[in-house]
Amino acid sequence: MSQKRDLTARKLFFKYYDGALENNLNVTLEGWIKSHRNNGSVGFIEFNDGSYFKNIQLVYDKENANFAKISKAKYGSSIEINGVVRLTPEMKQPFEIQLTDLRVLGDCAEDYPLQKKRHTFEFLRDIAYLRPRANTFNAVYRVRNACAYAIHKFFQERGFIYVHTPEITSNDAEGAGQVFHVVNDFKHPNDFFNSSACLTVSGQLHAEAFALAFRDVYTFGPTFRAENSNTNRHASEFWMIEPEIAFADLDDNMDLIESFLKYVIKYVLDNCKDEMEFFNNFIDKGVIEKLNNVINSEFVRMDYTKAVELLKKAAEAGHKFENPDIYWGTDLMSEHERYITEEIVKGPVFLINYPKEIKAFYMKLNPDNKTVAACDLLVPKEGEIVGGSQREEDYDKLFAKMKEIGNDKGLEWYLNLRKYGGCIHSGFGLGFDRLLMYITGMQNIRDVQPFPRCPGSLKY
Amino acid sequence: MSQKRDLTARKLFFKYYDGALENNLNVTLEGWIKSHRNNGSVGFIEFNDGSYFKNIQLVYDKENANFAKISKAKYGSSIEINGVVRLTPEMKQPFEIQLTDLRVLGDCAEDYPLQKKRHTFEFLRDIAYLRPRANTFNAVYRVRNACAYAIHKFFQERGFIYVHTPEITSNDAEGAGQVFHVVNDFKHPNDFFNSSACLTVSGQLHAEAFALAFRDVYTFGPTFRAENSNTNRHASEFWMIEPEIAFADLDDNMDLIESFLKYVIKYVLDNCKDEMEFFNNFIDKGVIEKLNNVINSEFVRMDYTKAVELLKKAAEAGHKFENPDIYWGTDLMSEHERYITEEIVKGPVFLINYPKEIKAFYMKLNPDNKTVAACDLLVPKEGEIVGGSQREEDYDKLFAKMKEIGNDKGLEWYLNLRKYGGCIHSGFGLGFDRLLMYITGMQNIRDVQPFPRCPGSLKY
Repeated sequence: MSQKRDLTARKLFFKYYDGALENNLNVTLEGWIKSHRNNGSVGFIEFNDGSYFKNIQLVYDKENANFAKISKAKYGSSIEINGVVRLTPEMKQPFEIQLTDLRVLGDCAEDYPLQKKRHTFEFLRDIAYLRPRANTFNAVYRVRNACAYAIHKFFQERGFIYVHTPEITSNDAEGAGQVFHVVNDFKHPNDFFNSSACLTVSGQLHAEAFALAFRDVYTFGPTFRAENSNTNRHASEFWMIEPEIAFADLDDNMDLIESFLKYVIKYVLDNCKDEMEFFNNFIDKGVIEKLNNVINSEFVRMDYTKAVELLKKAAEAGHKFENPDIYWGTDLMSEHERYITEEIVKGPVFLINYPKEIKAFYMKLNPDNKTVAACDLLVPKEGEIVGGSQREEDYDKLFAKMKEIGNDKGLEWYLNLRKYGGCIHSGFGLGFDRLLMYITGMQNIRDVQPFPRCPGSLKY
Repeated sequence: MSQKRDLTARKLFFKYYDGALENNLNVTLEGWIKSHRNNGSVGFIEFNDGSYFKNIQLVYDKENANFAKISKAKYGSSIEINGVVRLTPEMKQPFEIQLTDLRVLGDCAEDYPLQKKRHTFEFLRDIAYLRPRANTFNAVYRVRNACAYAIHKFFQERGFIYVHTPEITSNDAEGAGQVFHVVNDFKHPNDFFNSSACLTVSGQLHAEAFALAFRDVYTFGPTFRAENSNTNRHASEFWMIEPEIAFADLDDNMDLIESFLKYVIKYVLDNCKDEMEFFNNFIDKGVIEKLNNVINSEFVRMDYTKAVELLKKAAEAGHKFENPDIYWGTDLMSEHERYITEEIVKGPVFLINYPKEIKAFYMKLNPDNKTVAACDLLVPKEGEIVGGSQREEDYDKLFAKMKEIGNDKGLEWYLNLRKYGGCIHSGFGLGFDRLLMYITGMQNIRDVQPFPRCPGSLKY
């Protein structure tokens, strides 16, 4: 690396936090002007080189031989600066840089859409290629990065094997209409692969094959839904985390989910302090407290059956649900889930053992023949955030279920996993983008993704 | 976690390597039988629980009250065992387990396709859902995992931001016929997104937008090619690593590539010792030495122009190339690239400054107006392994080039990055699966991917 590239704002801040940043240090940095004001005798530039969330304040005054030149540098431009570090213990910012010189590397045209003012998220979505430069999105994508790394760290430290399950698949797992099809030159659906090809909705089935070889595995990659849902929480493309563990029952699964979620949240709080303070101040007041509560809670485990009873009682006692028709066998609505976690448990809670009719075919049938060994994790201010289950390891039961729902073609290999040294195993799925919404407090999935893909929208 | 799940073969081996594994330790483990032989008075089971590459030998004899029961346990079955650790300093394996008891958890049917014999890779490809249990693939996917993690570690330690660039895109970057199209219900190409949608061939353009906000970024995700190429080195779906760095020229880029490649290879050699020994012994003799040579070389930098001269000289001096027509302006063939790195340089070499006609539109035009600031890294026994370049940061030059090749529609945003605080920046692309082939010595890209997707093939 050239000498110049070696120094970044990140390194200066880390040096400062280590107590090792010297006053009067000469520095050369390259970055962008985030704001520039000048009263004719002294000027201030908010500078950011992309390596750190916080800006560095650059100061210059009339004494500076380059005063006139520096004054002309425009908001948005890329610049190279020389200057001297001044520790400023009496100020808001811990240090600033007294400019010696400034050179404009890349000008910023007058029609720059990202003006120095408050833009709506809707507007910023429309300039997705520029919004990473806006404060909020600078913070969002840094947290996204830290969160993704925390996920890998967590699993790697525990010996899990990362599996890249395929994106293109012949297995239309969720039924027609919900999947995208992949074609070559719009000819015939089977033109390229000799088989109808679609984009994956889940890597779970493939991950199970790997869990039965490597014991503990996880996928972390893109998944797709062709649902025509234009809500704040639906995207056509999003990343999923899907761990799968062998020799593990539902309790092992919940232990894993709990330690996983606590680890990832703690990593973000520890490693994105400035960003999380930003979210706490400007996006979602109380978000840090909410996350700390999750870290410090012991997650409760409650039967679906019990939850339905408690919800009925609450309704009888006068709580007004928008969907008051609560009975055993119903799929709980978000308001019900939130009532359980926010009002009854007042903390994270796993609902377990759901009616088999409302859960997926691969979930383990309990001895009662009515429920399956599923677990949904509900958290306050969100509702369901993770869904998992023990998988049916019994060949005959799984085969019967697959025949019953007409899903027995093309999945013989999946069934065979139960025939060749199968064992009890479990796993869960977590939408990465929804996790980010929860952690940052951002309200729209489009605002935690770099370039969101949604029905009718494929800009960039 | 339940007590039982807490212990794994991995932990036992790590304990052993730390010198902390006690003789006579009582253990309970769950895993699979990799082989089982019994001479009537003593039995040996090769046991693997998926957490570690090496098997553990389980031993039992006639003295054991469970001898008859244990004897019946079949190859391929999943089992739970109790036993006592015996350190065996005089044997090949460092320790074995004297069985107390064994319980079969999941039987293995007689028609198990993965028999205890040498199968061809072609056959194993056909049972992709079982091959992770075969020795070679156990090693392959462990190295794949370690390599993926090393990539994240390298970039994270250097402050790079991980960006999930989109999989579905409107930008048909490589021209018709090479991309897959994404449709909903085979209706109209524009039916879902109001725009023709295809699967990405590269995240670079999107990564550039992020580099101009975050300075140093990388993508690591799936990319796609609809080429109808049925070779050992082509897959329809593969993972790519694409870093992008701002305020960085071609030399900075090559510094990054060199340190990146050395770091990742060293990480694999350090963390997959057993697996790499396996590859060195059974797949590609000398592969470890080849990799160590890369780590210990200083990568040479040579002009394309100079390389062409040297190749011409070699041909004149009598070296027989299959493609002897070597001239300035030609795209070098693999045999030429290998001759340069293996015979001329005898080590890794960057070829730089290629004729503009044979490189991509976004590469920076050099002052000679004839070449672009591209760098291809060539390594012995492979040829090109990384391709990178400085990007054209000049708006007018880039615009002219895009118009010239008819690629100016839909990419206005990409061009605008040069208008709003642009700066010199560079990046590179590396096919993850090809890197794995290079590291493991595996000869077919289908044998380093979990579930390969190739023309005509979409099983599983």
